Amino acid sequence: MSIKIASKSHVEDLLAKYDTFLFDCDGVLWLGDHLLPNIAETLDLLRSNGKKVIFVTNNSSKSRADYVKKFKKFGIVATTEEIFGSSYATAVYVDSILQLPKNKKVWVLGGSGIVDELKLFGYESLGGVDPRYDGLLDMNDPESMIYKIDPDVGAVVVGLDTKLNYYKLAVTMQYLKDPKVPFIATNIDSTYPSKGMKLPGAGSCVESVVCASGRQPITSCGKPSKGMMDAIDKAHKLDKSRTLMVGDRLNTDMKFGREGGLATLLVLTGIETVETLGELSKDEQPTYFADKLGDLYELLQ
Amino acid sequence: MSIKIASKSHVEDLLAKYDTFLFDCDGVLWLGDHLLPNIAETLDLLRSNGKKVIFVTNNSSKSRADYVKKFKKFGIVATTEEIFGSSYATAVYVDSILQLPKNKKVWVLGGSGIVDELKLFGYESLGGVDPRYDGLLDMNDPESMIYKIDPDVGAVVVGLDTKLNYYKLAVTMQYLKDPKVPFIATNIDSTYPSKGMKLPGAGSCVESVVCASGRQPITSCGKPSKGMMDAIDKAHKLDKSRTLMVGDRLNTDMKFGREGGLATLLVLTGIETVETLGELSKDEQPTYFADKLGDLYELLQ
Repeated sequence: MSIKIASKSHVEDLLAKYDTFLFDCDGVLWLGDHLLPNIAETLDLLRSNGKKVIFVTNNSSKSRADYVKKFKKFGIVATTEEIFGSSYATAVYVDSILQLPKNKKVWVLGGSGIVDELKLFGYESLGGVDPRYDGLLDMNDPESMIYKIDPDVGAVVVGLDTKLNYYKLAVTMQYLKDPKVPFIATNIDSTYPSKGMKLPGAGSCVESVVCASGRQPITSCGKPSKGMMDAIDKAHKLDKSRTLMVGDRLNTDMKFGREGGLATLLVLTGIETVETLGELSKDEQPTYFADKLGDLYELLQ
Repeated sequence: MSIKIASKSHVEDLLAKYDTFLFDCDGVLWLGDHLLPNIAETLDLLRSNGKKVIFVTNNSSKSRADYVKKFKKFGIVATTEEIFGSSYATAVYVDSILQLPKNKKVWVLGGSGIVDELKLFGYESLGGVDPRYDGLLDMNDPESMIYKIDPDVGAVVVGLDTKLNYYKLAVTMQYLKDPKVPFIATNIDSTYPSKGMKLPGAGSCVESVVCASGRQPITSCGKPSKGMMDAIDKAHKLDKSRTLMVGDRLNTDMKFGREGGLATLLVLTGIETVETLGELSKDEQPTYFADKLGDLYELLQ
């Protein structure tokens, strides 16, 4: 059974056992635009105890640089090196695993985060936030971008696109007609929480493309994919026996930590409730759970 | 093995054996805006021999009335009663099978064909071609339609929407949060042929909703669904042993005919080729195949 973090000695135990703390962001540190209680204090506590903190997010609409700004807005200091987003993990994949030649372009169905991270690796993107793909597909317009498929595109990346439309889906399909062009998903979260509502997530964009193209992505770069863990491990040389993954989702965060060989801490400020925790098999139980991340700070006072 | 319609006697045999001819439209009668050769002549031939002709299409973007106009544009006479589209089949389903009370509304992610057919059965639609759902979802706009979910919606219909966007997907998800609201797909064709290209089909819209909502449609109303065959049978009292289904797709048209107990004729003017025919198991073979439907007329001359 999971141990509930409910006393000062529980927190002292965590501090003694773990050197590195991996955090999911939305649902753990904040909910949308609203910082959760005592987050800055908890992060300060960990850092002042010499702990390494790393932020791991599946939201591919932002680059690492965008996240640094978002943290700053909340009054939290974070460096680019501490942030692992699925947009960055995707760029690492395209560069290191696919080894796509730099003269090849990437078709992006997704937001600016992917485009920015690919650019840092020297890749030109098409699609993404290009306004020429906004609006309606007009097959009678000979100038439509659907008739301007670029033969230099060497990979297709699909992530969350909150400006998704039929036009972009149709163009994405044309690039996937060539079986030699690999199809990569940034992540496959089915939903995207916003303002207390659930909106379609990256997985919803990916599944639409899967159906239309008849192809499956060769990989998903977000949690719980191993690719994300490998990228973090490569950059930070994790001692996995002394690393804790903190998150609010069982099927991404907790799975990611468990399958990566880490201890896990579920917080109940996001997707899951104490009821869903009770329904889990022994193997699926997180190592720890807490009502909220800020409890680590509060319980020590 | 399938019999190739390649001589006058083959055609005479068809005329002797079958009284009712069911036709898929796109890929059989026309390709996009281009009528295939000798189609009007073939239909005239059948009618002058006392045959009943029925047109069965999965394209839900048009109503039966729209189809009558489209036929007329091609110089072909067809009546509303001869046309079975998935938009009509969906309206029949909502009315006869679901028996949705008439004071309930239907949320439509799809085109005007669905809205028009539902209206003929007395149902008010929301969504569809309403321009308020064009453009981008703005969660910061308190007037956004995402905050105006209508509690009178009693069913959700998803079909091909060539104006699909994230905004409509997000609203569709909100209506599907209530498990008592049934989710109906007009059809699940993965692709939609247009101007010699393959564009995303209704299935691509449906799969996006399936992923985001975590729900599966309770039925699909297009071919090869039994619901479509039942609707035709109810209206025309088919003698199935003397009915032939003509189409260009194995996984919709031919499956629909075969599973409905009809003889089948595959034409090679659309999706399938003589090579795909050769790869089929004995059970999957259509009864007949022909290079094109117009061969029925040409071979008799």
